[in-house]
Amino acid sequence: MPSQSTVSAVRETLKGQVIETPSWGYGNSGTRFKVFAQAGVPRDPFEKLDDAAKVQEFTGVAPRVSLHIPWDKAEDYAALGAHAAKRGLVLGAINSNTFQDDAYRLGSVTHPDAGVRRKAVAHLLECVDIMDATGSRDLKLWFADGTNYPGQDDIVARQERLADALAEVYARLGDGQRLLLEYKFFEPAFYTTDVPDWGTAFRHCLKLGPKAQVVVDTGHHAPGTNIEFIVATLLHEGRLGAFDFNSRFYADDDLMVGAADPFQLFRIMHEVIRNGGMDAERNVNFMLDQCHNIEQKIPAVIRSVMNVQEATAKALLVDTEALRAAQLAGDVLAANAVLMDAYNTDVRPLLAEVRTGMGLAPDPVAAYHASGWQRHIEAARVGGEQAGWGA
Amino acid sequence: MPSQSTVSAVRETLKGQVIETPSWGYGNSGTRFKVFAQAGVPRDPFEKLDDAAKVQEFTGVAPRVSLHIPWDKAEDYAALGAHAAKRGLVLGAINSNTFQDDAYRLGSVTHPDAGVRRKAVAHLLECVDIMDATGSRDLKLWFADGTNYPGQDDIVARQERLADALAEVYARLGDGQRLLLEYKFFEPAFYTTDVPDWGTAFRHCLKLGPKAQVVVDTGHHAPGTNIEFIVATLLHEGRLGAFDFNSRFYADDDLMVGAADPFQLFRIMHEVIRNGGMDAERNVNFMLDQCHNIEQKIPAVIRSVMNVQEATAKALLVDTEALRAAQLAGDVLAANAVLMDAYNTDVRPLLAEVRTGMGLAPDPVAAYHASGWQRHIEAARVGGEQAGWGA
Amino acid sequence: MPSQSTVSAVRETLKGQVIETPSWGYGNSGTRFKVFAQAGVPRDPFEKLDDAAKVQEFTGVAPRVSLHIPWDKAEDYAALGAHAAKRGLVLGAINSNTFQDDAYRLGSVTHPDAGVRRKAVAHLLECVDIMDATGSRDLKLWFADGTNYPGQDDIVARQERLADALAEVYARLGDGQRLLLEYKFFEPAFYTTDVPDWGTAFRHCLKLGPKAQVVVDTGHHAPGTNIEFIVATLLHEGRLGAFDFNSRFYADDDLMVGAADPFQLFRIMHEVIRNGGMDAERNVNFMLDQCHNIEQKIPAVIRSVMNVQEATAKALLVDTEALRAAQLAGDVLAANAVLMDAYNTDVRPLLAEVRTGMGLAPDPVAAYHASGWQRHIEAARVGGEQAGWGA
Amino acid sequence: MPSQSTVSAVRETLKGQVIETPSWGYGNSGTRFKVFAQAGVPRDPFEKLDDAAKVQEFTGVAPRVSLHIPWDKAEDYAALGAHAAKRGLVLGAINSNTFQDDAYRLGSVTHPDAGVRRKAVAHLLECVDIMDATGSRDLKLWFADGTNYPGQDDIVARQERLADALAEVYARLGDGQRLLLEYKFFEPAFYTTDVPDWGTAFRHCLKLGPKAQVVVDTGHHAPGTNIEFIVATLLHEGRLGAFDFNSRFYADDDLMVGAADPFQLFRIMHEVIRNGGMDAERNVNFMLDQCHNIEQKIPAVIRSVMNVQEATAKALLVDTEALRAAQLAGDVLAANAVLMDAYNTDVRPLLAEVRTGMGLAPDPVAAYHASGWQRHIEAARVGGEQAGWGA
Repeated sequence: MPSQSTVSAVRETLKGQVIETPSWGYGNSGTRFKVFAQAGVPRDPFEKLDDAAKVQEFTGVAPRVSLHIPWDKAEDYAALGAHAAKRGLVLGAINSNTFQDDAYRLGSVTHPDAGVRRKAVAHLLECVDIMDATGSRDLKLWFADGTNYPGQDDIVARQERLADALAEVYARLGDGQRLLLEYKFFEPAFYTTDVPDWGTAFRHCLKLGPKAQVVVDTGHHAPGTNIEFIVATLLHEGRLGAFDFNSRFYADDDLMVGAADPFQLFRIMHEVIRNGGMDAERNVNFMLDQCHNIEQKIPAVIRSVMNVQEATAKALLVDTEALRAAQLAGDVLAANAVLMDAYNTDVRPLLAEVRTGMGLAPDPVAAYHASGWQRHIEAARVGGEQAGWGA
Repeated sequence: MPSQSTVSAVRETLKGQVIETPSWGYGNSGTRFKVFAQAGVPRDPFEKLDDAAKVQEFTGVAPRVSLHIPWDKAEDYAALGAHAAKRGLVLGAINSNTFQDDAYRLGSVTHPDAGVRRKAVAHLLECVDIMDATGSRDLKLWFADGTNYPGQDDIVARQERLADALAEVYARLGDGQRLLLEYKFFEPAFYTTDVPDWGTAFRHCLKLGPKAQVVVDTGHHAPGTNIEFIVATLLHEGRLGAFDFNSRFYADDDLMVGAADPFQLFRIMHEVIRNGGMDAERNVNFMLDQCHNIEQKIPAVIRSVMNVQEATAKALLVDTEALRAAQLAGDVLAANAVLMDAYNTDVRPLLAEVRTGMGLAPDPVAAYHASGWQRHIEAARVGGEQAGWGA
Repeated sequence: MPSQSTVSAVRETLKGQVIETPSWGYGNSGTRFKVFAQAGVPRDPFEKLDDAAKVQEFTGVAPRVSLHIPWDKAEDYAALGAHAAKRGLVLGAINSNTFQDDAYRLGSVTHPDAGVRRKAVAHLLECVDIMDATGSRDLKLWFADGTNYPGQDDIVARQERLADALAEVYARLGDGQRLLLEYKFFEPAFYTTDVPDWGTAFRHCLKLGPKAQVVVDTGHHAPGTNIEFIVATLLHEGRLGAFDFNSRFYADDDLMVGAADPFQLFRIMHEVIRNGGMDAERNVNFMLDQCHNIEQKIPAVIRSVMNVQEATAKALLVDTEALRAAQLAGDVLAANAVLMDAYNTDVRPLLAEVRTGMGLAPDPVAAYHASGWQRHIEAARVGGEQAGWGA
Repeated sequence: MPSQSTVSAVRETLKGQVIETPSWGYGNSGTRFKVFAQAGVPRDPFEKLDDAAKVQEFTGVAPRVSLHIPWDKAEDYAALGAHAAKRGLVLGAINSNTFQDDAYRLGSVTHPDAGVRRKAVAHLLECVDIMDATGSRDLKLWFADGTNYPGQDDIVARQERLADALAEVYARLGDGQRLLLEYKFFEPAFYTTDVPDWGTAFRHCLKLGPKAQVVVDTGHHAPGTNIEFIVATLLHEGRLGAFDFNSRFYADDDLMVGAADPFQLFRIMHEVIRNGGMDAERNVNFMLDQCHNIEQKIPAVIRSVMNVQEATAKALLVDTEALRAAQLAGDVLAANAVLMDAYNTDVRPLLAEVRTGMGLAPDPVAAYHASGWQRHIEAARVGGEQAGWGA
């Protein structure tokens, strides 16, 4: 039973938590087999921000929105920023896209052809220009680059091309800007991926310098990988820049975070807290990166934010002194029990209190459904082209 | 060193082998991130047959082409059949599609709504009508049905809906027609898949009757699954209807068969041969099901056909008497060595001989490139809409 | 919020639950690298029963103990049974062992040598004799049989040998006895395993008859396998005989059930309840099969029993009407939320009440530690040979 | 078709190749279920060297033998070295063992108790003493350290303890000595492993200095991991110290190298050669680390050496100019075909020639069986305690 002062501190931490939501999570998405269209989906970045504003309105902890270039390209980023600000939002990380042009069939920054590489680097530099315009701190780089067949290209040559491109982009970063390098086990490349694991991302960040950090996408690992170990290691090394939260049963399923293995999410948040990752000065960006292929998008994002909050709340409730004591005593069952006690706690009442204390409804999903927004957008957003991957 | 009479028998078996190629393998395909368009890709089923004819022309063992409905829907199947026949081809398995209509967001034959299920069954029955028109023996059923989230739907209820749909389709089959049920570990569903493994497919086939058989897609298994065990079991039970050949390093990568693990392909063909799967009366349909996302399509299909031939040739060269003797003697290393001796044999000269004996060029890929067909189609097939998944 | 009558029914069900514990879980165990000895470990089956009695004393739901032959072989099973009865226990499933004799290097019932197969079958028949003596209902068969190298033995021949052995044992079963066939993905065989998956176990049970049922060991699946799907299917088919509960992050880790993925355990129990698996007449045997390599054994078993109870309690709290309604309406998020509401409930207070109602202490682990039993056995059980795998 | 001069160079490289065999590969081994004893197994390090000498006698490329401390602890290492030298052998890497003492139940160098850590470090320092005595260059460190349950110990604290221990050992290394750090995905720890991946091993080596390098054990990766990518990366970074060769279908099966996926072994050797790993000055130590649980040990080691030779020969035959040209041209199929051409070559005749040129029999396994050594040891090595893991 945590003390009142502990619970009070937990409440404050939960109030101050920030979870960044992705503009593309509000648009259509799908698998290679089918993108199912949904009613009311936004048709441009402004409408995506309108939807993100609803998530912020009902959760209070999602004031930042990641943009994806070129999907969210705008004529006037000041106008986009103002649109966001009017709704209590700020523009977040800029996500590059070097995978949806026919030129990138065999890679972008690692392509054997120098012309393609230049095109890709130019796009990355343009993203930094956009960061200057939006005031974004984070350039998030995910490369789809890799090969499908043994022999198709040279592994080390590709690493060298990658290093060159990253160095050029790194040099362009302004003060207060940083480069976040994401790794992914596989897909869309099926033999080699050029940044397949944390070791590779870490290695490149080390060479680049302190403004380069690693993104942990919770869906981007081999089966069985202990993600919290990686999180702990990167925090210990000062190289954890951000999370891309989502969940998976198989490959990179991009389901709602916490939907597949809520205990894993709790363990991750436990390592985050244990290793200072919630401290503001660490600047760990807690982002969602999900695909709501078959479920309604806005309530799915709300639910995902709540899942992160619940895992965080449980992790904050871990009795760290008792845990440390049991660990040092080598009492396996007692140490495990301390962790499980926190995990088994029902933190929904606590979070309801936190919300009430922030002037919010205790149940954000219910509040969203009651708000009429879904009916509004389904009626209003007729015609035009729905946003989706690639749009 | 196999005897002359053995080699001669091997040569005859290889001449008689039939590998069915998929119409969609000639069209564009991709991942959820991007479909890269290629020059010269067919725009309709007739052009797909033209390309398939090239594979048959240069390999001599690929006279059958699987169709996919509605992608290959034709006004006049007699005309399509005649187009095929003129090129030395016959129309093969009919593949149903119950995954690319917005109605199927939550499933097709297992959908909670009876109306959607009726729509899906109607499509399957239409496929049997088409089989009547094309003279196809095989109805290949792959269902994308499943759920993404725990609780989303009831597992057993979905099995019962599936069983009902299958029974209705089975009842409609004519003499000499059969239903081939494919299983898949995951994708596009990410929590449950309604036919996730051979056990489930087998269970449904048992209930349906002798005209229901299982399709083994070599890319549709959990990591580490011993596929040849499943092949041997299904042959032993008389329930192996067909293969969908392709290869994978990770999930359902749909790479060229034999590209990722040629030794596994050899072991599979060894079990096929050991258990009578090459006997004509067993009617095992050796089909390709691949996605040539980044490589040229026609030579990729040719290469795939050759990979199956090479694995078959090696498997035919296994000294079965020596193998059996070592197995019964419990001599682990000797038994393994017999298998490896066959695998380590370079069968390319033998296959070159087989081709020469069939009046073909010894190197089908080189012959294709020399034929000018690629230049022809790249020049001729301009305008119109390229065929691809969903087109 | 479940109604009072619901909670009352849940309480009754929890009181009536029976979880069988394994005699070998009280002895030493380890990995291939090391078996770490622990103080106070039992030296014979009688002392194992003494420890199992403690688990029953503090949990009230673990009155049955699985035996393993020959590890628990006794001169006089009546005496063993009386020893159990005096402590409120009954003897449970008889587990055969055909893997620890030098004769079984290449298999037992599937061995190429008929003499070895006879030896193995004789042991299985002896186990049925012991069942007659102990009054056990269940013969649990796990075969370590398989091969390590491609070609080592013939897959189908081994299946036939297995079928023959099973048929002989099945014929020997008395009224009220049954054969439970366990499958396992791999280990100790590393190429093929003769009963690698539920499909194979199911196939053999179908051939044998209604007294043959499948055991689902929660640690015996390929990465990513949806175990609750298998559970639902086997219950639907009337072929789920038992569970071997434990948990895993990687291979067959044999950790405490619920320790690695408590949400999975909950989903499994949800399918059990949904499909009648808790009904007494279904005779599903909920057994533990674990290795407490580094943690204290008795409290680890107590904790495991509690973990099953907590998962069961949560599953019993699922609002099945709301769930069904949301499923039929195709409301993905609502259906998932119904399930998660139950999972997120803290059921520890409810279980404390259940225990109090049974005259037990609310916290079984604390009660065990307070009982002095651990100190007693550590002091008393000095000398002799500790029980362990193989002893 | 490679030129004569190419083939001649390949032959010379193959003659010069050195594959180190492990002393423990000659002893008994097994799984946690059973160690099957074999006739003729050595009873001490001298007899292990006698067996290793047979492998060298018939292959000519296995003159070095890894020792494991304390299993191969000797009163007089000079005598042991002389015994080796007389048989054409030299003593190779020294392998530490911090996993078979009861003190190490919760870890060795990462144990929460400082006393246990000191004991473990003392053992490691003793291993360096032994290296001084044997003239070994390589200290190979594999740590079984990790945890079985979430919360059991602190991930980062364990990393710090590990770093401290490694630093102390590193400081003790003499000129020409180096520390090889092995990583392993899991087992015997089942929740966290303290050195679970190449990234962690690399990170520690970077901190230690140039005499610290990474060992790639081919069986120590998550399912689907692209090992050749890691090999290429480590060579590129100058941090690949050694291989522990073996093969696997599932976990760390420790089967004969090349037995499970010969194509993967070829791809690994291709990256080795491509990135200079065969150059003498790179000092990559090509070691076997296998468990011949059910097959005869000496011929299994011979076969393993031959498998590495065959993969090396094929990799040496890759037409690197054609490969590079196709890669730079972006010709996926042509590049893949160049690689496959080499892989599909039957290199057994070439290796037979190499052996004949070295004065050896062309078929080492047959020559071993003809030598009478197996009969000799089975007759002579009766009584005493057979060597095995832990002995």
